[in-house]
Amino acid sequence: MPRSGAEARARLREAALDLYGECGYDATTTAEIAARAGVTERTYFRHFPDKREVLFDGEAELREVMTGAIASAPGSPAPLALVLQAYVAAVPLFVAGRPVAERRAKIIATSPALQERAHAKRDAVTDALIGALQDRGIAEPTARLAARVGAAVFERAGREWDGASGSDLTALIGQAADELRELA
Amino acid sequence: MPRSGAEARARLREAALDLYGECGYDATTTAEIAARAGVTERTYFRHFPDKREVLFDGEAELREVMTGAIASAPGSPAPLALVLQAYVAAVPLFVAGRPVAERRAKIIATSPALQERAHAKRDAVTDALIGALQDRGIAEPTARLAARVGAAVFERAGREWDGASGSDLTALIGQAADELRELA
Repeated sequence: MPRSGAEARARLREAALDLYGECGYDATTTAEIAARAGVTERTYFRHFPDKREVLFDGEAELREVMTGAIASAPGSPAPLALVLQAYVAAVPLFVAGRPVAERRAKIIATSPALQERAHAKRDAVTDALIGALQDRGIAEPTARLAARVGAAVFERAGREWDGASGSDLTALIGQAADELRELA
Repeated sequence: MPRSGAEARARLREAALDLYGECGYDATTTAEIAARAGVTERTYFRHFPDKREVLFDGEAELREVMTGAIASAPGSPAPLALVLQAYVAAVPLFVAGRPVAERRAKIIATSPALQERAHAKRDAVTDALIGALQDRGIAEPTARLAARVGAAVFERAGREWDGASGSDLTALIGQAADELRELA
């Protein structure tokens, strides 16, 4: 039996990825995930409210790191620069999450319910960034435009990334921002 | 009984909006929609494959108009300019669709299944624009960035729009593009 809550949580995440990958998302139960992780189903529900959420662990931390970067940025950077700084601040999380990201993406692609949740999670990150920009006095419409465009720039960078080096990802974000300036 | 197929289709759309609004999306059946529209359920399924699709009629036309605008644009506009021209070309469709858009948005907000479909439809428009840009020789990553940023610019414009005048929406798209240039 895993001793700490964090260890149980990590084992549940891993067990869910394994079982969703092997048996399919729909065919897997939370009881099976708990059993594979060596914990009770009750422990599962202490960590995750449902079958989907186990795949999206770490999103709250991502939001915190990104909004924290916007809140603490010195000077008065332009709105888009703030958003890109937030993505750069989150690079260590993207590096750490990379081994899971591809397995997770494959599972999400199999289920409309998971796709909807993934969309909602992405929107929640965008909304958090918009809120953090507004806290710096940036008007909502401009904040929203900057957050959406920043997400597009980050997506452009992430698709080029080989997944290994954080400094590469940071450089790719800068290149994508340069490309945007040529487009706009 | 409606005589033409187009008339039946329009009545089915209207009936679905009415019933989804009055009784909720989950509680409404295709049989009820068909009855309200004065057609058979078989006629319903000749026009729409399921309960969701009746809410998204017109999306194929939107894609056609937008990709057509990209394909036929004279000269060699920059990728983002092409995307914005596509949105401008679709302004008459947005004006025509506006009376339905707000009722539809309220219904979509009540159902994760509908939200997922709405997300997928938006992605399908983006993918169509990317394809049209690629047909003009623009590389996929640049095309994707331009399509995503163009969508963000259009969203910025659409949120300011009062829904009445097409020329207002066209002007707002131009203003949002100017704002992007200041951001980037």
